[in-house]
Amino acid sequence: MTDVHTEVRPVRWIGDDDSGYLEMLDQRKLPADEVWEKMTTVTEIAEGIRAMKIRGAPAIGIAAAFGIALGAREDGAVTETMFETLAATRPTAVNLFWALDRMRALGPAAGYPRLLAEARAIMREDAANNLEMGRYGLDLFGSGARVLTHCNTGGLATGGYGTALGVIRALHAEGKLAHAWVDETRPYLQGSRLTAWELMKDDIPCTLITDNMAAHFMQRGEVDAVIVGTDRVAANGDVANKIGTYGLAVLCQYHGIPFYVGAPISTIDLGTPSGEQIEIEQRSAIEVTQVQGVSIAPPGVHAEHPAFDVTPAELVTAIVTERGVARAPYTDSLAQLVQSS
Amino acid sequence: MTDVHTEVRPVRWIGDDDSGYLEMLDQRKLPADEVWEKMTTVTEIAEGIRAMKIRGAPAIGIAAAFGIALGAREDGAVTETMFETLAATRPTAVNLFWALDRMRALGPAAGYPRLLAEARAIMREDAANNLEMGRYGLDLFGSGARVLTHCNTGGLATGGYGTALGVIRALHAEGKLAHAWVDETRPYLQGSRLTAWELMKDDIPCTLITDNMAAHFMQRGEVDAVIVGTDRVAANGDVANKIGTYGLAVLCQYHGIPFYVGAPISTIDLGTPSGEQIEIEQRSAIEVTQVQGVSIAPPGVHAEHPAFDVTPAELVTAIVTERGVARAPYTDSLAQLVQSS
Repeated sequence: MTDVHTEVRPVRWIGDDDSGYLEMLDQRKLPADEVWEKMTTVTEIAEGIRAMKIRGAPAIGIAAAFGIALGAREDGAVTETMFETLAATRPTAVNLFWALDRMRALGPAAGYPRLLAEARAIMREDAANNLEMGRYGLDLFGSGARVLTHCNTGGLATGGYGTALGVIRALHAEGKLAHAWVDETRPYLQGSRLTAWELMKDDIPCTLITDNMAAHFMQRGEVDAVIVGTDRVAANGDVANKIGTYGLAVLCQYHGIPFYVGAPISTIDLGTPSGEQIEIEQRSAIEVTQVQGVSIAPPGVHAEHPAFDVTPAELVTAIVTERGVARAPYTDSLAQLVQSS
Repeated sequence: MTDVHTEVRPVRWIGDDDSGYLEMLDQRKLPADEVWEKMTTVTEIAEGIRAMKIRGAPAIGIAAAFGIALGAREDGAVTETMFETLAATRPTAVNLFWALDRMRALGPAAGYPRLLAEARAIMREDAANNLEMGRYGLDLFGSGARVLTHCNTGGLATGGYGTALGVIRALHAEGKLAHAWVDETRPYLQGSRLTAWELMKDDIPCTLITDNMAAHFMQRGEVDAVIVGTDRVAANGDVANKIGTYGLAVLCQYHGIPFYVGAPISTIDLGTPSGEQIEIEQRSAIEVTQVQGVSIAPPGVHAEHPAFDVTPAELVTAIVTERGVARAPYTDSLAQLVQSS
């Protein structure tokens, strides 16, 4: 691996501990503008998550952890209300609850310095885990790989480096990547706005396509593998991820192309038996009928916007984690990885 | 059938024959603005087709026919240059060549009045054929059908009523349609801008989704059938249509959902043995990186834009025409329909 590449991150701490603050990169304004927003309260951070100034399951967990620390500084101690406010922002991302549980586990007496250190550790460990995941992912690909990804799972979505996109970074660093196919990922365009931006920053060759072009390039034999991230993996290997993921997995099966998932251990939820129990967040239809504030549909049209879908385990070739690669039967392999810490 | 619904059309003739002119509805400005552009020359009409002021295979053929008539009025007679100019606008639409051949068949001595009458006949017959196609399509669906369509195949794409969307109109008129799922159809958004607009004009219940949501709603059992149009059907039943069609067909097969194609006889090209011989038009990458002039990707990103894909006949449940329904083996059934005139 030639470089650590953790400079692209969703949040950063500015200043010293006592009077410093968190900055959140407003990803809604990328790639046109790089705007960092100063945040000092639980409310600001919860609103930033809810409004999708940042997105990506690990990034949400990291920001929430800093939110708890800042709340403790503001009010003198953590309160259950702080946890509830942050937990209510995005229902699908299990990392959010995982990060909040880790902060809660420090106990009600944990002071601001301890909480801030823990938030920093969560971010630092996440980036380190992603580097490990990238190493494990390398073996899944041949040389000259043309790899398609969906949504954004890069530095912007994590503590740095990325999950699925981290594997693509690792492939590039090892000289094994021919180029990355980037799904634009409607409606929120995380692929065109964020993934293409990150890949171009790192000079990784990429080609942007609309989501509905993936099948065509698979048919032409121009896609060797698909790798995506996940917001939650159920105990049986069912994978919740950005809307559009499930369709890609079906297309992979039809074309005999491997379908991989990059999943931090923190996204594996052994308490959820299968995808049927995963709540799918329904977001505003305005995100479907408008692009960057420009209306693209007739006024008053009825639109739906499920933000995630669930890919059944039978369509998943392998799940890559920072502790190794899980394959079917996932009920066994995932439990082993989770318990191997 | 309660109503003919041919008021939504791509072009209309204004004034008398001698001094009248063609108006083309600039579909690029829909649904925000309904702008009709006056056209009196071959060049204007060719540029309108090339720039996609109108699109849809039958609509392109109709406009080209009027172009030949107007050219004859302008220059006193038809010339081969006029045919070449119009034929060079869009390579995939076989109707374009079909309509030009029909105009050419009138002979070099055919005067403007005869050519104008022929162009009008092409438009009128197209709308009448679509009504017939709608009738044949009815039998393919059960009551309460939830039908997904892609791109725009309605009045805007044809001489009126529509092909695949005509079948949906017929289902609605017969009380058999629960509602239509409308794929937005990136990159050009024909679904959100045009199909949703047409359906709302006719009070046909519809739900707009991004293309990558189709798989999710199929998985949930909320899609009973898919029907799309086509730009060209090869002799073996392979179907060229708007990018994204092939992926839908694969998803239909996986979910056990019928995949139908509404194809005017004029789109069936017995001279093309299979989809392998169909040239796929590559359009500008700007249509991928911008939406309505708003940039949604990093400057300089490499993007691809194949405007069509090819669905192999084995994924097509049936092809509906104005002369009946073709099923596999298509080499036989399509040839029979074409020769049954």
